Amino acid sequence: MKKTEKQNTGKLKIIPLGGLEQIGMNITAFEYEDSIIVVDCGLSFPEDDMLGIDLVIPDITYLKENIDKVKGFFITHGHEDHIGAIPYVLKEINVPIYATKLTIGIIDRKLEEHGMLKTVKRKVVKYGQHINLGCFRVEFIKTNHSIQDAAALAIYSPAGIVVHTGDFKVDYTPVFGDAIDLARFGEIGKKGVLALMCDSTNAERPGFTQSEKSVGKVLDGIFEDHRKNRIIIATFASNVDRVQQIINCAEKYGRKVAIEGRSMVNIISIASELGYLSLPDNILIDVEQLRSYPDEQTVIITTGSQGESMAALSRMANGTHRKVSIKPNDTIVFSSNPIPGNEKSVTGIINELMMKGADVIFQDVHVSGHACQEDIKLIYSLVNPKYAIPVHGEYKHLVAQAKIAEQLGYDTDHIKILSSGDVLEINEDGAKVTGRVHVGNVMVDGLGVGDVGNIVLRDRQRLAEDGIIIVVMTLEAGSGQLLAGPDIVSRGFVYVRNSESLMDEAKCVLDDTMERLTDNNVTDWGKIKTEVKDALGDFVWKETKRRPMIIPIIMEV
Amino acid sequence: MKKTEKQNTGKLKIIPLGGLEQIGMNITAFEYEDSIIVVDCGLSFPEDDMLGIDLVIPDITYLKENIDKVKGFFITHGHEDHIGAIPYVLKEINVPIYATKLTIGIIDRKLEEHGMLKTVKRKVVKYGQHINLGCFRVEFIKTNHSIQDAAALAIYSPAGIVVHTGDFKVDYTPVFGDAIDLARFGEIGKKGVLALMCDSTNAERPGFTQSEKSVGKVLDGIFEDHRKNRIIIATFASNVDRVQQIINCAEKYGRKVAIEGRSMVNIISIASELGYLSLPDNILIDVEQLRSYPDEQTVIITTGSQGESMAALSRMANGTHRKVSIKPNDTIVFSSNPIPGNEKSVTGIINELMMKGADVIFQDVHVSGHACQEDIKLIYSLVNPKYAIPVHGEYKHLVAQAKIAEQLGYDTDHIKILSSGDVLEINEDGAKVTGRVHVGNVMVDGLGVGDVGNIVLRDRQRLAEDGIIIVVMTLEAGSGQLLAGPDIVSRGFVYVRNSESLMDEAKCVLDDTMERLTDNNVTDWGKIKTEVKDALGDFVWKETKRRPMIIPIIMEV
Repeated sequence: MKKTEKQNTGKLKIIPLGGLEQIGMNITAFEYEDSIIVVDCGLSFPEDDMLGIDLVIPDITYLKENIDKVKGFFITHGHEDHIGAIPYVLKEINVPIYATKLTIGIIDRKLEEHGMLKTVKRKVVKYGQHINLGCFRVEFIKTNHSIQDAAALAIYSPAGIVVHTGDFKVDYTPVFGDAIDLARFGEIGKKGVLALMCDSTNAERPGFTQSEKSVGKVLDGIFEDHRKNRIIIATFASNVDRVQQIINCAEKYGRKVAIEGRSMVNIISIASELGYLSLPDNILIDVEQLRSYPDEQTVIITTGSQGESMAALSRMANGTHRKVSIKPNDTIVFSSNPIPGNEKSVTGIINELMMKGADVIFQDVHVSGHACQEDIKLIYSLVNPKYAIPVHGEYKHLVAQAKIAEQLGYDTDHIKILSSGDVLEINEDGAKVTGRVHVGNVMVDGLGVGDVGNIVLRDRQRLAEDGIIIVVMTLEAGSGQLLAGPDIVSRGFVYVRNSESLMDEAKCVLDDTMERLTDNNVTDWGKIKTEVKDALGDFVWKETKRRPMIIPIIMEV
Repeated sequence: MKKTEKQNTGKLKIIPLGGLEQIGMNITAFEYEDSIIVVDCGLSFPEDDMLGIDLVIPDITYLKENIDKVKGFFITHGHEDHIGAIPYVLKEINVPIYATKLTIGIIDRKLEEHGMLKTVKRKVVKYGQHINLGCFRVEFIKTNHSIQDAAALAIYSPAGIVVHTGDFKVDYTPVFGDAIDLARFGEIGKKGVLALMCDSTNAERPGFTQSEKSVGKVLDGIFEDHRKNRIIIATFASNVDRVQQIINCAEKYGRKVAIEGRSMVNIISIASELGYLSLPDNILIDVEQLRSYPDEQTVIITTGSQGESMAALSRMANGTHRKVSIKPNDTIVFSSNPIPGNEKSVTGIINELMMKGADVIFQDVHVSGHACQEDIKLIYSLVNPKYAIPVHGEYKHLVAQAKIAEQLGYDTDHIKILSSGDVLEINEDGAKVTGRVHVGNVMVDGLGVGDVGNIVLRDRQRLAEDGIIIVVMTLEAGSGQLLAGPDIVSRGFVYVRNSESLMDEAKCVLDDTMERLTDNNVTDWGKIKTEVKDALGDFVWKETKRRPMIIPIIMEV
């Protein structure tokens, strides 16, 4: 019964560097002795208080500190929250990327945009294939999701097998390719699985997730009922199966298809090049060619289903799209649900489209790409892991999956809800969080990566709330005598032309303050700035109950 | 068959000054010859792009221009989107307010805060009572809603009867008082109604709205299942019936009740004073007294169900509440649904509460206060109006009600979807939009009413996105020679300590620009400012792909 020394002491470390207690920014390190492999490398979109930020990527200090151990990245699928940080992270840690064909295709386009195609190694992996890297072996298992070519990973380590589902759903009747390889989950389950890291996104929803094909039927009904209208359908660019179903309907009902929106055009070109999208001959037309066909013989597939202000659909809705104008006879379909946080912008677009007279269909033309409660139970039953580690989700989603595991008989000791940064040490003898590594959000704003931090954001927040008042004055070098000013310039505070008396009074407050300081021979700049700030701040608060940022600037000549 | 001259030509003008194509800010003028009455006087909450704005009230220029005609305000119920603008509007148009008892009670508290109790006349009206004002007669009809004492109005004008539902639902088993007076709707319908202005909020939802009492059963189940936990329930302060049901449960299960949140305390005091809330003896305790009772014998009713950052529940969640700390044994109930736009903040609070170990129940402990499709059909059938004028809602809600009216057999000529500002002239002979009046959003920011407009908001937006760079220089009077600067100060742009080289280079760009201008003898301040702005703007865009606001300031000595 005595195990070898190695087996007794060896522990696998599972270290999520992002993606837990949040939606997005999925990245998890698996470490065993001198080997680290990383699963996914995603970004997240800025929270409401991250003003002006374009996107957020994970802090990978831990990987950089252990750069010699890092062997490669395994990517489960091609969504931004799983691949979006690759160009930034791979600049610092240049190791090979392993993923399925479509996923690599999408990553390639991203690397190309960053001029990194020649520097980063990518390797296309097939389902069932095993990759040996350091002391790990990683197997790709077919799953279903709202993007094709999604994979779960079986990670074979000396401490045991970990199954990571990636984002997944169970679709017995997928539009393209095979159903999820449930049998392989079962086969691996029979070998004995140490831990299951399972998608929690829909863990609050009872029942089963519907097949993508069910949306095809709804779309067919819409095409049938709107034979006399132009049809415009907004959906997620990366949902190639959805696009395929729209194209199938277009073919059936004798319509040409125009594609609008950069990301939609991109994905469709990648997917059709790689054989994931089958396009009937001559069905695609340029948007410019739309005018050559009667409206009722056309469909436009567009981005913007989330109400993104710069996307094609928004521009159509507010009349700034250069090539497509909404007409009263249009039927516009949102083949999507709003992602939490986007509800208001989506509603705004719907209202605008309706005001232009269009018929807008925005309910029940979508199914989720994530497993619901009964699907999650199915995977647990097949994999039968010793430990449950819910992943992908806010804390409430992780808790919801933990409750499912409890229902399945797991005791709380065998359910591990981790935070990003936790180091979980795990083997057959136990699982325990033994430490923390540095993690965090690195904010990308324009070309700047990480140059905007909390101080800058706090300033932006303050500027956004109440604007800024700048006070400038010129003092004589040496004497400190006031030569010019104090002058006031404000932005985002009040509309000055309507508030002249307020600004005049503010000027008087400043003059009084400077007089008092001069009388008291105060020449210290720090002191002058503080007094100016306090006097003006008090005055403005009393008069307006606002707290604009006040910046005193002193020039010396 | 010939009608009198008066009957032939007299037309009622219906002029919505807010509340259409938006949620909130309900206010509608009814004008006949020299009489104007106004229904409701609400505020709306700022949209996402109204940075720093506290609330939005209607532009009432039209009423001010016709101040001699304005006879009074009729208020349908005590929600902010129907009463919130009263203190601002009545400062300018001081006419009497007519409403039911609780509504007046809530308005009184609001006027008191603004020191206007002595200047504004209020009159309590009973259901069934008729008020004669100018050439109008207005009858208050009992309805149900998520606040008590809601009324529909029958507006008798020389041109015909208009029925305005206010916000309403049909509740056959209300918690307090009577069910909606459907019979009276029918009776008035039989007299012949010119137009029905009906609540559209839930016009997209099929079926019937559930009774408020159904929530009582759910609450009872929660109290039954969580006998060993402290229970904290967040709900809308103004939903006194909900509070009553929580108190009933507390009494049944032997718990004391503490109230948290200023608006909750306010409403409960008004409602119990006026007899709308029945409090068992000694059931209420102060929050300070909570520690004197075992957790399982207490309930806390709190504000914050919408995730408002300053509300009591948010402070409990993030650990900054001075009197209540969340414990792992707490059961926290959201007896509410997130209002569109609040989803993310509500989810954020749920996550925080769960991380503190609390059990959080946030689904299905709420019913709506608005009529669903079948309820709307019921009202149409009873009132049987000649014209349908959907009110209360975004455009898509108005369209949804219009579709219901079409199903009921109304032709599109008899369905009038209005925009705020439209002047609808209506009588038995026809209904037509004949003009527009000035309407708009007046933004309230601190003490300022209307001093923040689009220019200020645009500046705040820009400041929020990319911050500000201030360039100051001192020139010699007359010669225009550069005596000091250009110096650079930035806020919300980059964290300067990490971006020293960028700021140094920016300084060089400015020095070069000034040198060039000096060489060319440019002394015109406008020209200098433009050149500085352009040169620095180009440099910053090239280096960072950001567009901070650039403010050049020239001092002269």
